[in-house]
Formats: sequence, C-alpha cells, structure tokens
Amino acid sequence: MASSGVGGQEPTAVPPLLLFRLPPILLFRRVDAAFYAALRQRYRVLDFFASGEPLPAFLAAVVVGGGAVRVDSAFLDAVPSLRFVFSTGAGVDHIDLHECARRGVAVANSGRVYSTDVADHAVALLIDVLRRVSAAQRFVRRGLWPVQGDYPLGNKLGSKRVGIIGLGNIGSLIAKRLEAFGCVIYYNSRRQRDSVPYKYFPNVQDLASESDVLIVACALNKYTRHIVNKDVLEALGKDGIIINIGRGANVDEPELVRALKEGRIAGAGLDVFENEPKAPAELLSMDNVVMTPHIAVFTSESRSDLRDTTISNLEAFFSGKPLLTPVLPW
Amino acid sequence: MASSGVGGQEPTAVPPLLLFRLPPILLFRRVDAAFYAALRQRYRVLDFFASGEPLPAFLAAVVVGGGAVRVDSAFLDAVPSLRFVFSTGAGVDHIDLHECARRGVAVANSGRVYSTDVADHAVALLIDVLRRVSAAQRFVRRGLWPVQGDYPLGNKLGSKRVGIIGLGNIGSLIAKRLEAFGCVIYYNSRRQRDSVPYKYFPNVQDLASESDVLIVACALNKYTRHIVNKDVLEALGKDGIIINIGRGANVDEPELVRALKEGRIAGAGLDVFENEPKAPAELLSMDNVVMTPHIAVFTSESRSDLRDTTISNLEAFFSGKPLLTPVLPW
Repeated sequence: MASSGVGGQEPTAVPPLLLFRLPPILLFRRVDAAFYAALRQRYRVLDFFASGEPLPAFLAAVVVGGGAVRVDSAFLDAVPSLRFVFSTGAGVDHIDLHECARRGVAVANSGRVYSTDVADHAVALLIDVLRRVSAAQRFVRRGLWPVQGDYPLGNKLGSKRVGIIGLGNIGSLIAKRLEAFGCVIYYNSRRQRDSVPYKYFPNVQDLASESDVLIVACALNKYTRHIVNKDVLEALGKDGIIINIGRGANVDEPELVRALKEGRIAGAGLDVFENEPKAPAELLSMDNVVMTPHIAVFTSESRSDLRDTTISNLEAFFSGKPLLTPVLPW
Repeated sequence: MASSGVGGQEPTAVPPLLLFRLPPILLFRRVDAAFYAALRQRYRVLDFFASGEPLPAFLAAVVVGGGAVRVDSAFLDAVPSLRFVFSTGAGVDHIDLHECARRGVAVANSGRVYSTDVADHAVALLIDVLRRVSAAQRFVRRGLWPVQGDYPLGNKLGSKRVGIIGLGNIGSLIAKRLEAFGCVIYYNSRRQRDSVPYKYFPNVQDLASESDVLIVACALNKYTRHIVNKDVLEALGKDGIIINIGRGANVDEPELVRALKEGRIAGAGLDVFENEPKAPAELLSMDNVVMTPHIAVFTSESRSDLRDTTISNLEAFFSGKPLLTPVLPW
C-alpha cells in the first residue's frame, strides 16, 4: 500500500535519551513502515501528519512529497533554520528553487528513481489508447463479446511519429522504448541534444503538426504550464493522441476536454490532471481516453529505491558531503 | 470496423460475361469493403456467408478465417477440386496441414502481417497487469480517487525475468520490445535458436520456475495444447504472471482460473480463451486479470496489409508461382 505505518506508536531502535541528539527532520509525506523505520533509526522524525504541530524553529531538513506542501517564501520564513529540502517526487514544481537558492537552502529530489517506471507507464497508456485495450476489456467484462462479436479495429503503434515534449531522463527512456516498437521519435526540449538521433523541434506547435502522438514528459514550470494548449491540440489534429505523464497543468485541461468532446483529437492517455485527485467528469465515459490516478511512479520496487535515495541524501546533507541528486534552479 | 460490406449487391469492376472466366474462390470469412472489392476485381468470389449454398465442386481456392470453418478430411472430401487454402489468420490450428499435404492442397497464411501488432499487445497486457493500469482506471472512472486516495502500488517491469513460450516471429518481437524495458529474456521452443542471446529452456516447467512472467506466443498444435498446465502454473508460483496471446487452448483454462482464485499466481493478461467469445465468468470481477476479446491482431493497418498478402498469395497460386507465405506441416 502507498501509505501506512506513520505515527509515533511503534518502538524506535534509538534509546529515548539519545533521540534528542539526532538531527531533526520534518516529514511532510506519508511513507510506508519500512521507510519510516529507516528514517527513525537515523533522525528525530517530526511527522507533520501525525503531530499537526507548528513548524519547529530548530528544524534543519524537511522531506516533502509532491504537492502536499508548497516550499515557498512563507514556508521558508516559518522555518528560518531550514537548510535542506528533500522532495520524494521527481517534479519540484511545489518548491520555489530560486527562493531556496537565495536563502542557501539546498534541494534534492528522487533523481532517476522513478524514471523507468514513468517511461513504462507512458508506453502502456499509449498502446492502451491506440489498441483500445481498456475499452475492449470493458466490452469483455460487460459480457458484450458473445453478443456483439468482433471489437472495432485499433491502430498500430509501429511507424507512428511520436513527439516527446521534454527529453530528460524520462523522455529519453520513453524514446528508447518506442524505438523498439518501430516508432519515429521527434522531440521538443529547451535546447537541442547533440547526443540523440531524433529530430528536434524548437517549437511545440510544429512538433505537434508533424506528430501522430504527443507525449508530455517535461517538468512543470512557468515555461511549460499549458505547453499543450488549444493551438497545439489544433496542430496535432483529429487523428492525434495526447499522453501526459508530466504534470496535469502541462496541458490546458479544459481545452483538452473540449477537443476530445468535439473529436478534434483522437484520444488521450492521462496519468495526471490539473485538479488531482479529480479527473474531469466529461472524460469518465469516453472510450478513447485512458485515465490512471497518478500512479506512473507507483511500484514497490521504486518505493524501496526511493527510501534508499532519501536516506543517502539526508546522510550526505548531515555529514556535509555533496548531495546525490541535487536540484538547482535553471 | 471488423466486418462490413459483404454481400453481392455492389457493382463489380468486371463485366458479367467475363466473370465466369475468373478463377472461383470461396470466401469463408467476413472482410471489409475494400478487401472484398480487391478480391472481386480478380476472382469470382463465392461468399459462403452471403450465399449459404453448398460447396461448389469446381472450387480451386478457399479463403478462411480463424476458426469459422475447419479444413479437415470432411471439408476436403466435399471440395475435391480444391488446390489452395489461404488462412487470413497466423494460426492454422483449424487446418489439417498433414491432410492438405497428402492431398496436394497448398496452404498459406497471413505470414508476418500481424506479428508486430500481437507483440505490441502482449507488452501492453504485461504492463497493464504489472502496473494495474486497467484496475486503476476503473478506480478513477468509478469516482473513487477523491474518496480513497492513493492507489495500491504495482510492480516494475524492468529486470523482470520473462519466459517466452515459442520464439517464432511474434515471440522474437516480444523479446526485442521487452529488452528495451530492461527485462531478462528466457524462452522455450521446439529447438534452441543459435542466433539469439536468450537462455533456452527445453522444458516449460523449468522455464516457469525461473521466470517472473510467462508469455504464451506459440502456435496451437497437439504438442502445445495445454502447454501451460497445473504443474507449470505451480512452477511459476504465487508472484508469477501469465500472458496469453497465442490460443486459448495453449493454457489449461480451468486450472488457470483455479490458480487465480486461490492466489497461486499473481495475475494474468489474456487476449485468447478456450471457448471464445466466452471468457470465464470467474475472471470478470478480478482486478489482477486483464482480458481483451482476441484483438491482438485488430488494427486497421494490419487489416490493409492482410488484404495485400491475401491477394499476392492468390495471384501466386493462380499463376503457378511460389506462394509468398506458405505453411508446411511439421
């Protein structure tokens, strides 16, 4: 399960008298029992969800999940002693990186822990939309197969032109996977990569008009908010498919919903939404839309890797060594 | 759509007086309008479904779909003039290859037309089962996300040991795709392939006990009927996953259902079933089972390729040239 075992009931491995000598960290995220135990062996863990107490003034480090808290000026004002923020998510759009840098607060994130899982999920969403896997499964589960016979044809993945927005760790892994399926890879990114053979489009709208599929795999920031807007959807066209495993706000969701309702694009595979945990009600009945509840990172294997990455970064921070997966403002 | 436009209403491109000079072929399969037109330009097409007439004694060639008719001794007795059977499916388990060979009846099939689509579908089913894509989607569509919060963790695809039963065209394409996801590929096949780097298991039970996932990608014949039986499921074990894109009868379905019900295997992704179009009722409510209605070959692109392959083989047969995609008995 994603969340369990938080709270102060369970015995700690550290004798109570020594506990106050351990560095204090604030936990702003529900974690599983093994993760919690690993933290408590090393630190005095202040669990925001368990205690609900105000932010302590002596706090040195904080572990935050994606979106549960915004690390902005107001937050940093409340904990002036803070020197390190660890984000258990890959995205850091909930952290004001410039403000942290200005105040000398180091930031690290989960690094590449989730990258392969997210790339795998993107491929799963794409094949599902193209090949109508989920919709065909509903047809079976509703008992319609014996009644209605053959299910309508889907579309082949091979030779599709896939435009990837954001060719970072995740985008590159998506590209590698889709190459094995015979797709043609295009991409848009802040700058062209010399090391990749894929065609680069400096403009997202141009990428969309040359692509059969657009995959949103970029971070969310002021440049990428609504990077998929009405014009990009228009350029993608009525046979086009959108996959989003980035952040909900990378796509102008009302425009996406309108385009789907009016048949101006062919389908969508969405793991993220603008107002999670809400998915737009209009999409719930559409057979050409595949929606998952922001689970692209949800595997027990990556959860265990995350625990290791978190501890390693905290240990590096508290011993004055370089962080393993630092995040710097652009 | 999978079936449309059959029947004798539409005008043929061939003048009626010439029609009887065209070679007669019997169509035992519903095809789309473009496919039907392509056949009628070249042949006198006798449509079994449209006419329902008895098999004509002068028939030279027959085009059959998967399972609509069995080409066995009784069938061959009824059309003694028959010299060519074309199967629009890759599987030819409905054709008695030995009996055809004995009587000098040539057989061809769809060749590799469907291979990539089937391989893609196998990968989609596997990621869906591991990552709970369909189940998580039901959670979203039922409005449970805002109520219940985070969805349970799935499992990572990378580094999983995938045992492929049957390393033919389809099996090899599945292997190539899963290599890009970082899987370890094992296989069982009639004989070891010198050209592949994957570990070979002469015995399916041994393959199962070393694998996290078993993918059934072999033809159905007397050697492979129930090749996944109770012992193989037992060897695969409670964390194991079965994917079947071969034929339903490659798996002992009642044993599979029992193993799933009792938690003796972890999940299944099934595109084929023993009694299609029926899927076992017990599976319909299981969240760890993904079921599609034999759609692994259902893309409009492969449908168009199939039309070309069918015509090419018929033209080769009627002009005495070698068939493009002949099928021989073992």
